[in-house]
Amino acid sequence: MTPLEMLEVAYEEARKGLAEGGIPIGAALFSADGVLLGSGHNRRVQQGDPSLHAETDAFRAAGRQRDYRSTIMVTTLSPCWYCSGLVRQFNIGAVLIGESKTFTGGHDWLAEHGVDVTLLDDERCVAMMTDFIAENPALWNEDIGVADT
Amino acid sequence: MTPLEMLEVAYEEARKGLAEGGIPIGAALFSADGVLLGSGHNRRVQQGDPSLHAETDAFRAAGRQRDYRSTIMVTTLSPCWYCSGLVRQFNIGAVLIGESKTFTGGHDWLAEHGVDVTLLDDERCVAMMTDFIAENPALWNEDIGVADT
Repeated sequence: MTPLEMLEVAYEEARKGLAEGGIPIGAALFSADGVLLGSGHNRRVQQGDPSLHAETDAFRAAGRQRDYRSTIMVTTLSPCWYCSGLVRQFNIGAVLIGESKTFTGGHDWLAEHGVDVTLLDDERCVAMMTDFIAENPALWNEDIGVADT
Repeated sequence: MTPLEMLEVAYEEARKGLAEGGIPIGAALFSADGVLLGSGHNRRVQQGDPSLHAETDAFRAAGRQRDYRSTIMVTTLSPCWYCSGLVRQFNIGAVLIGESKTFTGGHDWLAEHGVDVTLLDDERCVAMMTDFIAENPALWNEDIGVADT
């Protein structure tokens, strides 16, 4: 699979989340040879569960794996610290990111620690989050831990 | 509540996990005035879910919160990068840790980023993990992303 084909899986997850009334961030975990191990999307709204970011949902969907070093985490948006920590702890080898214009998490930190980070500048991903944040600023801030002052 | 009383809640969660055949790590999220918001334990084995570390399970149990700055995450063991990332992203103000002898995660990094970190040296927590790791090395390595070489 090409990077864009892998991103498409994450993007479709984000679209599912949006259609459900949720925060439109999607992710997918692939093996080195392009087999989809699991995919998911942010479910804060849908399940009232703040622990389910897109990447953690995809990680959960992939079930127990013994070795993540050759896997690729694909996400529509730069992974927050929570999801970056997941990648680092489990030694996920590569991260493919749709965009980091609307939010920048810990992907530079991951690159410093040896993760193969690829940052795309996917216009659909940017547009999806730009629109969502403009329409739902409080919900977005809740999802990234930004409190009202 | 005193730190030891708060740790007791996390320790009892870890004991529950052990009784279920799981990895004995427990956690609890408290408000500044000592109200228990949520508690949980590692459920990798019980639910086949690698995303449920003790801290993320407690965070999930606390449900959606608008502001974590005054909350305290109590955990029997030094939080791994995944759980440290959770604390940083959501601006959880304080972390109280039972021990870091059997595993050291990202608590120094959290302290550098302004989190109020208290590290105890609780003998019961140390003994519980020491025994568990000795008896289940492969399972423990799986939980912290250490692959067979």
